[in-house]
Amino acid sequence: MRAFIAVDIGGTQIRVAVFPEQSINPIQEKRIRTVAEGQTAVERMILLIEELWPRDAEIVSIAIAAPGFLDPKAGIVVTAPNIAGWINLPIAQIIQDRFHVPVYLGNDANLAAMGEWHFGAGRGYSDILYITVSTGIGGGIIAGGQLVEGAHGMAGELGHVMAEPDGPLCGCGKRGHLEAVASGTAIARYMAEKIEIGIPTSFPKGSRPSARETALAARQGDALSIEAFNRAGFYLGRAVADFLHILNPELIIFGGGVSLSGETILAPMRKSLEENVISPEYLKHLTITRTVLGDDSGLIGAYALMLSKLKNS
Amino acid sequence: MRAFIAVDIGGTQIRVAVFPEQSINPIQEKRIRTVAEGQTAVERMILLIEELWPRDAEIVSIAIAAPGFLDPKAGIVVTAPNIAGWINLPIAQIIQDRFHVPVYLGNDANLAAMGEWHFGAGRGYSDILYITVSTGIGGGIIAGGQLVEGAHGMAGELGHVMAEPDGPLCGCGKRGHLEAVASGTAIARYMAEKIEIGIPTSFPKGSRPSARETALAARQGDALSIEAFNRAGFYLGRAVADFLHILNPELIIFGGGVSLSGETILAPMRKSLEENVISPEYLKHLTITRTVLGDDSGLIGAYALMLSKLKNS
Repeated sequence: MRAFIAVDIGGTQIRVAVFPEQSINPIQEKRIRTVAEGQTAVERMILLIEELWPRDAEIVSIAIAAPGFLDPKAGIVVTAPNIAGWINLPIAQIIQDRFHVPVYLGNDANLAAMGEWHFGAGRGYSDILYITVSTGIGGGIIAGGQLVEGAHGMAGELGHVMAEPDGPLCGCGKRGHLEAVASGTAIARYMAEKIEIGIPTSFPKGSRPSARETALAARQGDALSIEAFNRAGFYLGRAVADFLHILNPELIIFGGGVSLSGETILAPMRKSLEENVISPEYLKHLTITRTVLGDDSGLIGAYALMLSKLKNS
Repeated sequence: MRAFIAVDIGGTQIRVAVFPEQSINPIQEKRIRTVAEGQTAVERMILLIEELWPRDAEIVSIAIAAPGFLDPKAGIVVTAPNIAGWINLPIAQIIQDRFHVPVYLGNDANLAAMGEWHFGAGRGYSDILYITVSTGIGGGIIAGGQLVEGAHGMAGELGHVMAEPDGPLCGCGKRGHLEAVASGTAIARYMAEKIEIGIPTSFPKGSRPSARETALAARQGDALSIEAFNRAGFYLGRAVADFLHILNPELIIFGGGVSLSGETILAPMRKSLEENVISPEYLKHLTITRTVLGDDSGLIGAYALMLSKLKNS
């Protein structure tokens, strides 16, 4: 039997899954924390791969979904701000030297797009925008039936486009990016600021609700929480209009924690999108939906990447 | 001998060229005005094709570069604001019915990108952004060695992305788009407004200099003209930073009349780009250059399209 090992590493956890050749249901899967006393993230990843390495199957390849700036062609993580010490790390080579099978590397959001395309909400489409809205905002682009990685694998950074000049500081250090006004972090910050200055809300004075708590309160009618999501949705819709003008996709898939709030974020997003798009033609054949694979999209995307490499080899 | 007929139609002129199979130097070429008493643009296009139709060559196909919103797959011009009556026009079918050879249709800026990629500044690259800055701002995208047309051929509208919320009115009817602050039209409007309110300049009171005249004055040291180009370059650079984050190209080609001003627009563009990009990695392997084919890029792109169709048939 042949099998594939997919790795999804983030700032919080490392997940490893062993996939058979014919199914997106893993034979084995396990997750551990990324950080532990006395071990590096790379060491922990290697130990977890060893633990799950099947005795009765031939491993074809390993693919790693990682956050941050990567050079997928070179197999190097340039910077991964959430993982200590991951600067110019030749991760593909390190893992290949240890396990002696081909190792592929991909940006987690790009691979999530790949996963949704092959096995999730994007099946049968060839022009797809995958947008993940959680702590940050990331994305993956499928254009003309091909993943857009860019010249050095840094394409799809959809959270880092100008949304509001001179707006709030973004995680990247610039001001007014989409991520700084429409991510979960941005929603939580907006709430904290408004509660601080005494805007009426169902939350107690001095509290700092998360984006998830804010979504709940919005559904229960809290005006400030509704406004926080309307604002995020407005910026999201305006940016999506720009993405349509640039890429003209036929499908947009929203993923990430904030998208779990459903219409709370999607209704104002859609309204803003309709107001900002330059021609209704862009919307006529456009489907907007949510992720089918959820948290598994990165792992399944890594698996899809390995299948496509096998097919093209 | 086999030959190809390329057509480039704009609001002002229709150009037709007959290309041999092995060269971008046309066997024949002629341009006429788009508008004439008693004839439609389609009739004039057909007459010009008939006139140039070679007696001693077999025409393989015809390709038409047209402005506006097109559906290239269906061969339909959805709307071309600059050409009277071109609404939902099945131009490919009309020309095919008349000449009985395959007819292809493409957006003029997308085909210009294709032309530069195959025969101009983009040779050997696979991730290219072509940006034309003239009366308006348009674009074409090559990603992973493939033209990005989008699901319905409306990709690459790089002028219609948000540059300055609540900024000046754009040609498309929305506010604050890149085209409304960085095109030749935007530069001329900025000058007229500043001259109107008495800002010191080498231009006489009440004058309305064009972008070209403004570029000349900027090179001669006129402070207001320099400021007009600095402002356009600032917005252009900020938008290009967003394009890098989305697409991570390795080459940017500037075309269009305003790009002829060279460093007058490119120097402030570059400065702004460096300030707004989220990682120097995006710039490390990036080349910024100007069109090699100039006005011929649309015609040559139409030719390149026909060659690629022939290769893939």
